[in-house]
Amino acid sequence: MGRSLVFSTNISLRFSQTPRSISPRIHLNQSHKFTANSPFGYQKVGILNSNCTRKLCTRALMSEVSNQRQFPKVVMEAVNKPRNITYKGLTDLVTDTDKMSEAAILEVVKRNFGDHLILGEEGGIIGDNSSDYLWCIDPLDGTTNFAHCYPSFAVSVGVLFRGNPVAAAVVEFVGGPMCWNTRTFTATAGGGAFCDGQKVHPSQTDRVEQSLLVTGFGYEHDDAWITNMELFKEFTDISRGVRRLGAAAVDMCHVALGVAEAYWEYRLKPWDMAAGVLIVEEAGGAVTRMDGGKFCVFDRSVLVSNGALHAKLLETIAPATEKLKNKGIDFSLWYKPENYITDL
Amino acid sequence: MGRSLVFSTNISLRFSQTPRSISPRIHLNQSHKFTANSPFGYQKVGILNSNCTRKLCTRALMSEVSNQRQFPKVVMEAVNKPRNITYKGLTDLVTDTDKMSEAAILEVVKRNFGDHLILGEEGGIIGDNSSDYLWCIDPLDGTTNFAHCYPSFAVSVGVLFRGNPVAAAVVEFVGGPMCWNTRTFTATAGGGAFCDGQKVHPSQTDRVEQSLLVTGFGYEHDDAWITNMELFKEFTDISRGVRRLGAAAVDMCHVALGVAEAYWEYRLKPWDMAAGVLIVEEAGGAVTRMDGGKFCVFDRSVLVSNGALHAKLLETIAPATEKLKNKGIDFSLWYKPENYITDL
Repeated sequence: MGRSLVFSTNISLRFSQTPRSISPRIHLNQSHKFTANSPFGYQKVGILNSNCTRKLCTRALMSEVSNQRQFPKVVMEAVNKPRNITYKGLTDLVTDTDKMSEAAILEVVKRNFGDHLILGEEGGIIGDNSSDYLWCIDPLDGTTNFAHCYPSFAVSVGVLFRGNPVAAAVVEFVGGPMCWNTRTFTATAGGGAFCDGQKVHPSQTDRVEQSLLVTGFGYEHDDAWITNMELFKEFTDISRGVRRLGAAAVDMCHVALGVAEAYWEYRLKPWDMAAGVLIVEEAGGAVTRMDGGKFCVFDRSVLVSNGALHAKLLETIAPATEKLKNKGIDFSLWYKPENYITDL
Repeated sequence: MGRSLVFSTNISLRFSQTPRSISPRIHLNQSHKFTANSPFGYQKVGILNSNCTRKLCTRALMSEVSNQRQFPKVVMEAVNKPRNITYKGLTDLVTDTDKMSEAAILEVVKRNFGDHLILGEEGGIIGDNSSDYLWCIDPLDGTTNFAHCYPSFAVSVGVLFRGNPVAAAVVEFVGGPMCWNTRTFTATAGGGAFCDGQKVHPSQTDRVEQSLLVTGFGYEHDDAWITNMELFKEFTDISRGVRRLGAAAVDMCHVALGVAEAYWEYRLKPWDMAAGVLIVEEAGGAVTRMDGGKFCVFDRSVLVSNGALHAKLLETIAPATEKLKNKGIDFSLWYKPENYITDL
């Protein structure tokens, strides 16, 4: 039968010497359904309680903001880079904050959902891979932005049930020095998408020349990276603009919020996408692979849009992606935990 | 002799049905010097009083923010596009807000500085072109972002004395729906650069591979646009990333604030650059043309950086720009008011 549990993390974001505590609090309880026909007794389990999340985030945020108003010097010091940056690649950063954030989330998930499987960006796979549940955790999406105090970045948590996203929370950190603030996006399968507790919807724009688009470029600079440079150029030419902000979960939430019409990227990982794609779908947008095929979070490309524009964007994006496939570029599923059973 | 005047604008930013009043207030008085040796009796005239600006902006901002906290529905409605968008080109927008903002600024400048020359993005040249003073006004820098509620955009006002920027204010609108906020950058020649009253400095990063860069692409898709696509690709390859945010004044202020290391763009206009370049210089950064030559606000290219990185960036950017010049691309001064006398 269902379970009622509280998932709470205290994510400390360290800017310079000053730790900042942001406490997104995620409830899983029995009061909301997130899957229509789960055969495993979880029918009424699992909700990222957006109201509670919003309230607690807002409280932490208010404390954050008021600290900044009172001690602007501390905020100005935050412009300095965090001290402990290490590298996954020449330009692929990881900070202590990524690790601390993931540890905080893992600790809570493991304590409360010991039989769930977890995939974290920093720590990889942990837990029971016979579980139907897979938590996809990006403890700090947009680490480069974070390291530079450049808005935005996010904490992204998505929960899959047999491979399909069923619950999602993205806490976006916006504004930058003097103006740090957060905005929390939540969604449950069939339950809609919310921003700070308010229902969100994508835009209705159906013309490329009236659209504002967003994309991203990964750390591997291969054929797919080159193809996306060409797409960036093509769409910059024919749309109102293509933004490059630097955090996948944030970019997807912006589509759900209606401030951008679409976002695409090659080679994202499940922890980058699991929460964002559900938020876009539940807001009323569309999600496919970049070749137009049915998307799953283990795919190596994603296109999210307001829906109205999806087919028109695919007219350009799909053939470019097909060319990559024809060149033998690997688009097979990745980061799918061994033995994890899905309905995909 | 000097004059003591108050410059005050009430800039109404209309999101959906709800007008929002933001009142950046700019003082010009006799208490601060902004040019060392002006022969025209203005030696001690002219300061964007950052303290006053900050206080008044903060007050307006606080009212703004508290409104949003109280009426999140109104903010959600702001996600909808503004109603009155017209076009300068297929994708080059102008909203009623651009026009209202410029009219509000012009009215005040004309009333208080009737003998000054004014160059506004929307209205062009107004006033006495025998004046030593030229106001360069971008009433809404980043109109596309504004139209989509995509952060950031700005109001940018820079004042030239005989062609050189001597006073600047940029009010940046950050955050987006649920989180709108402002941050005000100010600078005076020789007086430093400030953000909400706090002195700002650029980063000290001197390695391209540790830098976060920003660029922009204009509406004219010619050889310079293509060259910048190549620069975008080149620097995305070798740096931590190149951001494309969409508002020149904002991008420059971000360099001054130290959250990005450098920003460049071809074909900006004086109203895009007059305030931003002074803020970067006064923060301690560097400003040149993209061929490395001495910059003035009537130039058709600009590179601003933290200083430490400038020469290294020019190693790539200058030859690319020289190639454009060798192809006959026009890099002569533009938008310089006829008969406006400068010390350039």
